[in-house]
Amino acid sequence: MAYDVNTTTPEGEKRLRRVARICEGFGQRVQYSVFEVTCSPTLFAQLLAKLQDTVDPELDSLRIYPIRSDFKRDVVRMGRCRELPTDRSWTI
Amino acid sequence: MAYDVNTTTPEGEKRLRRVARICEGFGQRVQYSVFEVTCSPTLFAQLLAKLQDTVDPELDSLRIYPIRSDFKRDVVRMGRCRELPTDRSWTI
Repeated sequence: MAYDVNTTTPEGEKRLRRVARICEGFGQRVQYSVFEVTCSPTLFAQLLAKLQDTVDPELDSLRIYPIRSDFKRDVVRMGRCRELPTDRSWTI
Repeated sequence: MAYDVNTTTPEGEKRLRRVARICEGFGQRVQYSVFEVTCSPTLFAQLLAKLQDTVDPELDSLRIYPIRSDFKRDVVRMGRCRELPTDRSWTI
């Protein structure tokens, strides 16, 4: 999932923070405005509804690419990696 | 393909322009730093080599997600869409 939120106005700054907060609730940030989300169809529908209420259709852009669940193997990574390994549990 | 290039230095600004130019030579920009690329394995290897020579592994991040060739149907789009339809030819 990748988004471009227009931040030339204070409202845009607010939308950007809200979109990021929504995405953090469903997936893992891997770049500044790119998230990887692995969830059920029900949760995905909730995610879409929340994003639809937030994104400005005239000013912003958001794209969600469906990817095979075992995609992690095939992702090509260059440079800094932000994501936490998801193949084991974390104690917070 | 999505990238985060650190632009806090003039060299970073230069790297960002170069990464964008490389990607424009292989695919279609759909967001500020997101491209869709459909190409042969040979061209893909050339793309990777050029990006590897440009991306700073300490400062930048680039991710390439392999997606089924008929992915266009399944992409969820919200808001502004930048890409040109690719299902017909264009006279430039």
